[in-house]
Amino acid sequence: MTQTTARPEALDWSVEHCTIARAMAVLGEKWTVVVLREVFNGVRRFADMRERTGVPRQVLANRLASLVEHGVLRREPYREPGARLRHEYRLTRKGFDLYPLLVAVKEWGDRYLADADGPPLTMIHRGCGEEVHTALHCAGGHPVTEFRDIAPRPGPGARRR
Amino acid sequence: MTQTTARPEALDWSVEHCTIARAMAVLGEKWTVVVLREVFNGVRRFADMRERTGVPRQVLANRLASLVEHGVLRREPYREPGARLRHEYRLTRKGFDLYPLLVAVKEWGDRYLADADGPPLTMIHRGCGEEVHTALHCAGGHPVTEFRDIAPRPGPGARRR
Repeated sequence: MTQTTARPEALDWSVEHCTIARAMAVLGEKWTVVVLREVFNGVRRFADMRERTGVPRQVLANRLASLVEHGVLRREPYREPGARLRHEYRLTRKGFDLYPLLVAVKEWGDRYLADADGPPLTMIHRGCGEEVHTALHCAGGHPVTEFRDIAPRPGPGARRR
Repeated sequence: MTQTTARPEALDWSVEHCTIARAMAVLGEKWTVVVLREVFNGVRRFADMRERTGVPRQVLANRLASLVEHGVLRREPYREPGARLRHEYRLTRKGFDLYPLLVAVKEWGDRYLADADGPPLTMIHRGCGEEVHTALHCAGGHPVTEFRDIAPRPGPGARRR
């Protein structure tokens, strides 16, 4: 049993401007990352996403609208012969910059939640064909593999509570 | 305007066993990643998390219970002098392995959602003191910086629809 430990230093600092919370306000709704997975996989049209994911119509419409509003996706018009004008969804730069996050989600899922035959999807490096992974390193050039070697510190925008 | 494009190959494959969806089933509830942020920052006690984050009591209790159930956190008993036995929350190995994901969330948030004075938190490499970042690389040893260079492929557990 742990005896009383020191008061965590983090308690002195405000979380009001936290960028993790802000990022999760964009990404943390159920299905949002699944919708992004579809677009990263080249599935860009509403009907295709509906068919493949089974996300309820209204939920899918809301998630796509929110991602467009946050500048993660953009709507591109297209027209099938004889059909009305529709839109497909494409990643913006802000959206593409979610790739490391998506790979990190997938790696953790692959490690702990895959079936015995392995994950249904891999992400490969075009050209060499090898699988893509995330790694942590520091700005000083060191690989960071031991999580005990990472320490949180107040950043430039830190405010005391 | 885009004319009709080829049917995305991804549509041939089932998403039923997708590890991204499974990971987000664990992490995708509102507040879950914020709760993890607290534990990664050394804030391990219910009352401290409540005080700092303002997450409603019942929501916080549910998120912690779910993370314990999924093996991401474990409960450790402690006792303050004169008080009843309580529990604090600590990361398991499965929890520590979320560090790259948390850093990826933070980096994206820092880039697009920080205030003008910068993010309130940095994560540094103990020892050298430099900031920690995520990077993508492939198993062939190449850094992957252009997202167009990544391609999704059916994995070992892929099933046709």
